[in-house]
Amino acid sequence: MKNYRWLTELLSPEEGHFVSIREFLFSTTTEYQSLDILELGDYGKCLVLDGRLQSTLEDEFIYHEALVHPPLLLHPNPERVFIVGGGEGATLREVLRHRSVRKALMVDIDREVVSRCKELLPEFHQGSFDDPRVVLEFTDARRYLEENPETFDVILIDISEPVEEGPAYLLFTREFYQVVKDRLNRPGLIALQAGAATCIGAGGECFSAVHNTLESVFPSVSAYMASVPSFSIPWGFCLASPEPGLDPLSLRDVDDLIRSRIQGSLRFYDQLTHQGMFSLPKHIRTRLAEEQRLIEDNAPLFTYR
Amino acid sequence: MKNYRWLTELLSPEEGHFVSIREFLFSTTTEYQSLDILELGDYGKCLVLDGRLQSTLEDEFIYHEALVHPPLLLHPNPERVFIVGGGEGATLREVLRHRSVRKALMVDIDREVVSRCKELLPEFHQGSFDDPRVVLEFTDARRYLEENPETFDVILIDISEPVEEGPAYLLFTREFYQVVKDRLNRPGLIALQAGAATCIGAGGECFSAVHNTLESVFPSVSAYMASVPSFSIPWGFCLASPEPGLDPLSLRDVDDLIRSRIQGSLRFYDQLTHQGMFSLPKHIRTRLAEEQRLIEDNAPLFTYR
Amino acid sequence: MKNYRWLTELLSPEEGHFVSIREFLFSTTTEYQSLDILELGDYGKCLVLDGRLQSTLEDEFIYHEALVHPPLLLHPNPERVFIVGGGEGATLREVLRHRSVRKALMVDIDREVVSRCKELLPEFHQGSFDDPRVVLEFTDARRYLEENPETFDVILIDISEPVEEGPAYLLFTREFYQVVKDRLNRPGLIALQAGAATCIGAGGECFSAVHNTLESVFPSVSAYMASVPSFSIPWGFCLASPEPGLDPLSLRDVDDLIRSRIQGSLRFYDQLTHQGMFSLPKHIRTRLAEEQRLIEDNAPLFTYR
Amino acid sequence: MKNYRWLTELLSPEEGHFVSIREFLFSTTTEYQSLDILELGDYGKCLVLDGRLQSTLEDEFIYHEALVHPPLLLHPNPERVFIVGGGEGATLREVLRHRSVRKALMVDIDREVVSRCKELLPEFHQGSFDDPRVVLEFTDARRYLEENPETFDVILIDISEPVEEGPAYLLFTREFYQVVKDRLNRPGLIALQAGAATCIGAGGECFSAVHNTLESVFPSVSAYMASVPSFSIPWGFCLASPEPGLDPLSLRDVDDLIRSRIQGSLRFYDQLTHQGMFSLPKHIRTRLAEEQRLIEDNAPLFTYR
Repeated sequence: MKNYRWLTELLSPEEGHFVSIREFLFSTTTEYQSLDILELGDYGKCLVLDGRLQSTLEDEFIYHEALVHPPLLLHPNPERVFIVGGGEGATLREVLRHRSVRKALMVDIDREVVSRCKELLPEFHQGSFDDPRVVLEFTDARRYLEENPETFDVILIDISEPVEEGPAYLLFTREFYQVVKDRLNRPGLIALQAGAATCIGAGGECFSAVHNTLESVFPSVSAYMASVPSFSIPWGFCLASPEPGLDPLSLRDVDDLIRSRIQGSLRFYDQLTHQGMFSLPKHIRTRLAEEQRLIEDNAPLFTYR
Repeated sequence: MKNYRWLTELLSPEEGHFVSIREFLFSTTTEYQSLDILELGDYGKCLVLDGRLQSTLEDEFIYHEALVHPPLLLHPNPERVFIVGGGEGATLREVLRHRSVRKALMVDIDREVVSRCKELLPEFHQGSFDDPRVVLEFTDARRYLEENPETFDVILIDISEPVEEGPAYLLFTREFYQVVKDRLNRPGLIALQAGAATCIGAGGECFSAVHNTLESVFPSVSAYMASVPSFSIPWGFCLASPEPGLDPLSLRDVDDLIRSRIQGSLRFYDQLTHQGMFSLPKHIRTRLAEEQRLIEDNAPLFTYR
Repeated sequence: MKNYRWLTELLSPEEGHFVSIREFLFSTTTEYQSLDILELGDYGKCLVLDGRLQSTLEDEFIYHEALVHPPLLLHPNPERVFIVGGGEGATLREVLRHRSVRKALMVDIDREVVSRCKELLPEFHQGSFDDPRVVLEFTDARRYLEENPETFDVILIDISEPVEEGPAYLLFTREFYQVVKDRLNRPGLIALQAGAATCIGAGGECFSAVHNTLESVFPSVSAYMASVPSFSIPWGFCLASPEPGLDPLSLRDVDDLIRSRIQGSLRFYDQLTHQGMFSLPKHIRTRLAEEQRLIEDNAPLFTYR
Repeated sequence: MKNYRWLTELLSPEEGHFVSIREFLFSTTTEYQSLDILELGDYGKCLVLDGRLQSTLEDEFIYHEALVHPPLLLHPNPERVFIVGGGEGATLREVLRHRSVRKALMVDIDREVVSRCKELLPEFHQGSFDDPRVVLEFTDARRYLEENPETFDVILIDISEPVEEGPAYLLFTREFYQVVKDRLNRPGLIALQAGAATCIGAGGECFSAVHNTLESVFPSVSAYMASVPSFSIPWGFCLASPEPGLDPLSLRDVDDLIRSRIQGSLRFYDQLTHQGMFSLPKHIRTRLAEEQRLIEDNAPLFTYR
């Protein structure tokens, strides 16, 4: 066996995924979480937080284009964007490609994660942290939004899964989504990653419960999916808006919008990709529709690890 | 650790997936391949051939509905269906739900696989082998088609991956697809599973090379995808027809067709699922478009294991 | 990778061992524990209880000769032997080879384990259960000894590790060893397996704590070791006697005793092996000497799993 | 699962061992082999060459005391010692504790391994490289011995296993042992590590074949064993001498010799440990005795990896 160093992720007590480690670039335990920057076989450089793969060089474009471009193109003119989390700077990178954006405020709780990614993962942020439109704050994003009256056109929630003792679980609750809604302009949109999209075991609970919780706060909520190979399970996302009637599938001029509003070319996202992402398979829609769980500060959701 | 018995699949030399084994129902080495019928954690009963997960109780409906219903509903009146492989009988089960079907001829090389699945996996075949419309033959499907002049409305190729020394690799070549085409009525369609749909490493080579090889034989070829969680990687399928101009995305009355032509209710497939499956993301379309490889009898493709 | 079915044992949260599974012979959950009878790569058939390898065809002779022959040869004329546990019958097999033995009473709590081993592991017991000198009871060995006044020349404790919720942990306590001592004739000896013999992490705690607990009950206690490859860590044993002054290393005529008292030939045990087993390395002796822990009914020891 | 980074070693195609990685200190591919300096769970810092664990902080004392002290104490007055390999400097450290030693010449092929160990594993070498008695050369030890007429009292061969394409396989042959013998003073001794000592599968082949090959060159050859937990399998060593009649078990004053000739205190080795190491169990002696294989330059032995 040529490979002898492995990164292992348990998806549940019954199932896991392993990838070979080619190189160890940096590992530490920050104030908030364990942090690894590794180079993986086939996937290249990657960021790992609390033992969970966050993004890899070879497929992060799927995740970040999926998170950023649908909400920004569904907005007529997104000028002010708020990013909750976003550690490695790739969400920021995609936001800044939108010519309309005048301010991108990124609030990540973990200064060390951002600092190490800035140094060691330049392919991910591509210099975005130095763009003059960017404001970067290191604090709890929820507290920041609660204490600052500034409002935004789009808010992107790009945080790791709500594991116990991790920094993120209070950013998955009804109360937090209410705070987010209060900081949105009209028109306004949010998008977030919502965990694995699967019907197996307890695996899809985060996706469906986040979706259900968003529906208790926002009149318009749309779920969508994208397959990021390094996650080894399809991934769920949600879009939401304080205005009723949002229907992402009615957006038919994605290719034109990309040409006119986004700099450079995209690898994952276009009209057909957009259509595919929002056309969830029936069993996933069934699971979302049946979900009753409401995530609240005093009834938080924790995912397995 | 509660679990101590594991099924491990290497997706490449760099990456793998493991699932706990709850129960061992049957294992043997047949004339053609190793065969395991296991019960897995979260996934339930499953069929494993040559160490590769073929289908599990909890998510086989995704694979089998994806393979069968698109070609049968794109055909105006499928009466005669040929199944290449199809061991556990679930493809047959879905075919038989189509009211129009008058004959389903299934040719699997491995009598022992079919016999054990018939006995141990009744939830998969649901008695399909006893349907009077079914003819079951145990021989090499390619030779069968070459030697018999009978023609069919739909041919479904439901075989395991082309691993070296496995029984399937000569069923992935241009020459075989030509045989298949020669046994199709007009109108006629084929559908097949084509391996992992990924852009990472060599992982997606089977999908793109099969797609390219089909294009050298059939005027109409469409690729599509579905996520079967137990495969841990999105799965690729292809549809092809000897008639030009086939456009699956133009099929807008899937829900009506299901109601009128299929018995019972589906869990995975409907109009929106159909739209999602055929709306491949841009990077997968790019990879398919760039593929040059032609799989031929004297230049076969083998997937990693 | 040729192998895709694995048995995995965690030795600690930091370390584990995996062996390929060739064949699944039987698996169930009995009234007391999970039970697997498997065929492993290189090791052949094996017995697994609660996920822990108990013995394999290729190396069980090491364990069973090490457990049985030292105490029986140190006794001048062992006629009556009591076996606590001993599921697969291999301890019984070695006991019955001693020509002096007139009665071997084996008490195992788990009738199903013994019954399945009798049927599926004949190479292990070699018909021992049918020997007219054998009495077999299925009950709790501790209660049996407490309730029956019968006494024995040698008592062998051949039970699985004291895992939480497992059936064995009350057979590792000072109170139990007192019961055992009360049922020993004079002269009399006991021998038992005592878990991993290692200085790493918490791994050797069972061995040293059992040794220390025995010393609180018996005047003579000797620790010894043998390497059973399938355990992947050297294994600890203890001998004890109610008479002071027992020194196993002073036994110099092992080869003669084997010839005169044991039927058939041994593969592991002889004079030099005896000398090696009782000549513990210094760091293990140091660890045993430093151990303070006393295992008692209300302060039981549980090993990791 | 708290741990998500693992070091995995296959012992054979059927079996392996994994240990958690706590910290990555250094990894590279040198001119000769892959090199990792890691911190492992429970075992602490370690050296890994070509994916094989060489030594760990918590148990390297076992391996190095076992390799060094028996030959040096069996020699009446070892002044000049040659070390073949010995990368991390721990063999050197033990040699230098012998008051009689006036020169220790260490020849390791891989300058980068030694340099990185010197920097990152000071607990292993403990400054030995700076001892004025030490001469360190970076070249092929076999060529060095062939080209230099200098002779030695003790030669220690401390090299990694003979894996294909690794740097060591020509240091396991009859021809090399002849070179070594030619550079020994009279009296003189060599000691070497000889791979896993097991009777399972092909695992013990290196040990028995090395032993057999040594017997074709040296009149006196003794095999011995020690259990190094991180190797997960007992380890074999051999002693050899150009003089007939060497019997390590006749050495009865080990404790006195340690006091008079070795500085500091030992953790593993003393009289009883010595006796235990050279008292091989019968099945291992049987395997050694049955071995016919002679390792030669044109019939080298490669161990599995």
